[in-house]
Amino acid sequence: MANRAPIITLTTDFGYKDHYVAAMKAVILGINPDARIIDISHGVPPQDIMAGAWVLRNSAYLFPEGTIHVAVIDPGVGSDRRPVLVCMNGHLFVGPDNGQFSLIDGAETADVYELTNRSLWRDPQSNTFHGRDIFSPVAAHISLGIPPAEAGELSSGLLTYRWARAISDEKGIQGWVVHIDAYGNLITNIPGDLIHADYRDNIKIYVGTFILNRVSRTFTDVSPGEPAIITGSTGMLEVIINKGNAEEMLSVQKGAPVSVIYQK
Amino acid sequence: MANRAPIITLTTDFGYKDHYVAAMKAVILGINPDARIIDISHGVPPQDIMAGAWVLRNSAYLFPEGTIHVAVIDPGVGSDRRPVLVCMNGHLFVGPDNGQFSLIDGAETADVYELTNRSLWRDPQSNTFHGRDIFSPVAAHISLGIPPAEAGELSSGLLTYRWARAISDEKGIQGWVVHIDAYGNLITNIPGDLIHADYRDNIKIYVGTFILNRVSRTFTDVSPGEPAIITGSTGMLEVIINKGNAEEMLSVQKGAPVSVIYQK
Amino acid sequence: MANRAPIITLTTDFGYKDHYVAAMKAVILGINPDARIIDISHGVPPQDIMAGAWVLRNSAYLFPEGTIHVAVIDPGVGSDRRPVLVCMNGHLFVGPDNGQFSLIDGAETADVYELTNRSLWRDPQSNTFHGRDIFSPVAAHISLGIPPAEAGELSSGLLTYRWARAISDEKGIQGWVVHIDAYGNLITNIPGDLIHADYRDNIKIYVGTFILNRVSRTFTDVSPGEPAIITGSTGMLEVIINKGNAEEMLSVQKGAPVSVIYQK
Repeated sequence: MANRAPIITLTTDFGYKDHYVAAMKAVILGINPDARIIDISHGVPPQDIMAGAWVLRNSAYLFPEGTIHVAVIDPGVGSDRRPVLVCMNGHLFVGPDNGQFSLIDGAETADVYELTNRSLWRDPQSNTFHGRDIFSPVAAHISLGIPPAEAGELSSGLLTYRWARAISDEKGIQGWVVHIDAYGNLITNIPGDLIHADYRDNIKIYVGTFILNRVSRTFTDVSPGEPAIITGSTGMLEVIINKGNAEEMLSVQKGAPVSVIYQK
Repeated sequence: MANRAPIITLTTDFGYKDHYVAAMKAVILGINPDARIIDISHGVPPQDIMAGAWVLRNSAYLFPEGTIHVAVIDPGVGSDRRPVLVCMNGHLFVGPDNGQFSLIDGAETADVYELTNRSLWRDPQSNTFHGRDIFSPVAAHISLGIPPAEAGELSSGLLTYRWARAISDEKGIQGWVVHIDAYGNLITNIPGDLIHADYRDNIKIYVGTFILNRVSRTFTDVSPGEPAIITGSTGMLEVIINKGNAEEMLSVQKGAPVSVIYQK
Repeated sequence: MANRAPIITLTTDFGYKDHYVAAMKAVILGINPDARIIDISHGVPPQDIMAGAWVLRNSAYLFPEGTIHVAVIDPGVGSDRRPVLVCMNGHLFVGPDNGQFSLIDGAETADVYELTNRSLWRDPQSNTFHGRDIFSPVAAHISLGIPPAEAGELSSGLLTYRWARAISDEKGIQGWVVHIDAYGNLITNIPGDLIHADYRDNIKIYVGTFILNRVSRTFTDVSPGEPAIITGSTGMLEVIINKGNAEEMLSVQKGAPVSVIYQK
């Protein structure tokens, strides 16, 4: 990390029309002009902590080891939720401890530093924009090589939420739609490999008013306009429509049940 | 600036679906391959010069000194509005002189160079895309160390607009909503510190059909769904709803009056 | 290319709310930490190959020679459409061979390498996200200096689509609206210089229910709210409204005819 310009990623629900993201980048570059800043997403739905957690789950660990990830989906800014720095599997995460790191592998056993060293913060701090005033400057200082322990005190566990885990038994699997992406693909909490190997070609899958009888290999395995279920790039079952938008055409929303029933 | 890759920021109303922003970045990198380009925002509402001015006000000076800011909210492209390079407080600004730099500290007394040196422009220039053909190449050349005076002629004052200034007297303050951010927060032209210290705990604030009786410290000082007024991260009073969208829930629009009345 | 951090551009229809774009950037930086990644656009309408082709046409060649352009508008992912690396005019293009490179100068005679060297791919590959698993890693390896011939086998012609070409004769020109940009400007497939020089001041142009009698120089040549035709920054005729949105105000859609009739 010391020899190469460090990578700092940003994930927020700030959107793309205001100055908020740029303010964070400016503060980072003011402290470490060599930082390389990569946007993960600023289109997380406002205050949707679990949507942010999903984005981080699917992208953070693809970055090189040593990457610093700043995440600010922060509806509780100014309350007593803790500002933290978290070390997991060689990556560093900075942001409010409000569940947004829940879905990252290692979250439940991670080292957590509660940010208390105000000399690393912007001065003064606002009560409403800790992304600019606390998280960005701490990330920038860390990227300069300051050890995590100087940012705050080693502390107890990270706040983690879990989606209801898909329920699996010998009759089948009960899961839910947990995310809908920009294409309208319905992403479930059912890992594709949770389906019992003996039944892969002998199942019925219920979603909304549709019944499907297999897991397809890819989008184009069904005719245009037809719904299908695939194991998506995140490893989870997804309900998709070839060249169409499943959210609109199936009228299925986040939280809708998805049932996999093994056929005898 | 000469020893480190210079930062060039971009602020436009070009949106995110077309090639316009990429064309500017390409032209910059073609002239100075070492330039580090940072997006401030391309989501400024189309042709809304004052919204662009607001974004620049809140982010430009957070960047390191020597940063070059290219801003192109340019409804008058091709007319006789001047193309300019402006030096303010160690930062450089490039774009049309149409009011978009109005809210930046120092705008009224800044050094203004009217861009006349066509050898720094792209050849030929279109009549409709000066962002690609004039402003980006000038910024890129300046980032290579060319002095501002070579870009054009030192000239008279920058065009600046001002929002109606909030009116303050011994009875209270009369202001307006001047910006609504992506969360639906209603940002006013009333600096939080304009409220007379003697009355901080003894005021009524009228906005739309709501009456509030104090300035809260942060979002979470009121119950979810309740409106409040805070001093926001820009220093201005903001009408917010904890975990909600004030624009939608209060049906208040840009331009709406906000009155602070001191209670005896 | 070897002496300076190479530029890799990204063009997709992934939008800005999901992790997909970040996953591509992470994979690239994992292979070549020095790559400089520039977003062209991720706001291409979902699965609209020709909209992606239009964006690439107008921006790719403005980047410095040696730039590597990754484009993933890929409705056929997982089908037998070929993954390719294309060399055109000193630029490299990586993505599915599905027509998205159609409008780039040189596409019809370009060198095409069909990607077959799986040692340059991510392992394992998903069936649904080749942007992360094939195109990004290949681009990153190429940016390290691996010659194109190592990525796959030299192959026959690239799949190219063409918009219906505008029809021109001694009476006038018949064309169509082929793109509508974020401002609502209606961009046609009629090059501005296709209008016969003798008739420039003596034409009628029919679009929707409007008739215009000249090509204006720029946006501000007509009064605010009035429609006009200009030769846009892409070289094509565009129907615009000064300070307005032509798409909304003229109710004209992609595909609508535009007729230029020479007046005797």
